Amino acid sequence: MANVDILPESQPILYSYWRSSCSWRVRIALNLKEIPYDIKPISLIKSGGEQHCNEYREVNPMEQVPALQIDGHTLIESVSIMYYLEETRPQRPLMPQDVLKRAKVREICEVIASGVQPLQNLIVLIHVGEEKKKEWAQHWITRGFRAIEKLLSTSAGKFCVGDEITLADCCLVPQVFNARRFHVDLRPYPIILRIDRELEGHPAFRAAHPSNQPDCPPEAAK
Amino acid sequence: MANVDILPESQPILYSYWRSSCSWRVRIALNLKEIPYDIKPISLIKSGGEQHCNEYREVNPMEQVPALQIDGHTLIESVSIMYYLEETRPQRPLMPQDVLKRAKVREICEVIASGVQPLQNLIVLIHVGEEKKKEWAQHWITRGFRAIEKLLSTSAGKFCVGDEITLADCCLVPQVFNARRFHVDLRPYPIILRIDRELEGHPAFRAAHPSNQPDCPPEAAK
Repeated sequence: MANVDILPESQPILYSYWRSSCSWRVRIALNLKEIPYDIKPISLIKSGGEQHCNEYREVNPMEQVPALQIDGHTLIESVSIMYYLEETRPQRPLMPQDVLKRAKVREICEVIASGVQPLQNLIVLIHVGEEKKKEWAQHWITRGFRAIEKLLSTSAGKFCVGDEITLADCCLVPQVFNARRFHVDLRPYPIILRIDRELEGHPAFRAAHPSNQPDCPPEAAK
Repeated sequence: MANVDILPESQPILYSYWRSSCSWRVRIALNLKEIPYDIKPISLIKSGGEQHCNEYREVNPMEQVPALQIDGHTLIESVSIMYYLEETRPQRPLMPQDVLKRAKVREICEVIASGVQPLQNLIVLIHVGEEKKKEWAQHWITRGFRAIEKLLSTSAGKFCVGDEITLADCCLVPQVFNARRFHVDLRPYPIILRIDRELEGHPAFRAAHPSNQPDCPPEAAK
């Protein structure tokens, strides 16, 4: 009998780096929706970055994390992945029903995912250079946080948009962590700080935290 | 009788700059859906950038274009605005029905909107400096286009995803224009070039082109 190659139905695989805020967004969404998944760590620093090796480039041609193998497909780009989860796994919705609130969630996600994170991620900071990188990261994070605080002043309830956790919260919490890493003064952003505090103890957020990742180096673990 | 302040039902107002690729995305989507709109030009260069003035900061706290006033609300962030149009104006859908194709559209939008455009926009190039800006812009556009060409190799039909125009095409065409502006060698990206050529004559894309905007300076108009 021929050796028939039947793949067992397997759980999703998340290509992730412990400190990547984009990987972290997806980890939170997977946890909130209680979707079991395996993590395949991709080190962004080992051997010049494992994300640039030929094998991983086949997974994600942008050569960055995250990527998610799910339902027989490989998906890239963190916000896009979260919307796929939202559309295919309706349990524990992470988007409001109301069309205006949905727009507000997307706005906050896009300010972070297009207006802040890309300008302070590792690959850009390498180009900016060691000497200037802290000031550069602070500049772009501060600019974004000023805008986000303003948006939240009309959209926030207990969380970013109203009283339910949404994709905006999945994006905000990792970005606050990055802001602290670059020693951004967060005192001018009381709403951001309040929401971040509200969520820090939430099991789905806690399990997704960099310090709780399998590839977190021992010296950085809590 | 008291002076009752009844606002007439007005058409949407798009805060736009002729050469802004993010404004351009929204102009295409509005045109494709045949939504009449007024343009309020915001010059990104006059007096240090009109987007930074107090009045406009109230419209868009990110101090950038576009912003869209529609249905009594002010929306910011170009991709988010397009999804709002898609959710509220179902005519001429710009998203596929199929959940995987939807993910592919979002991926391409996000690669451009988070992975390419933010790194080569005017405000970042000012920070990079006159001397290095061309090389910097080329570097990030090339990195993104390599990935997009790879994604398109499995998703594209006549357009970015299949044979219907989607939001991915609304993002791609303005980014190709930017690539040309920074003299990126586009020969390695035949699928991108083919789709761009396919769309350049489309009335909705042509009307949204920078050279056809009310604030296009005469020397740049076609």
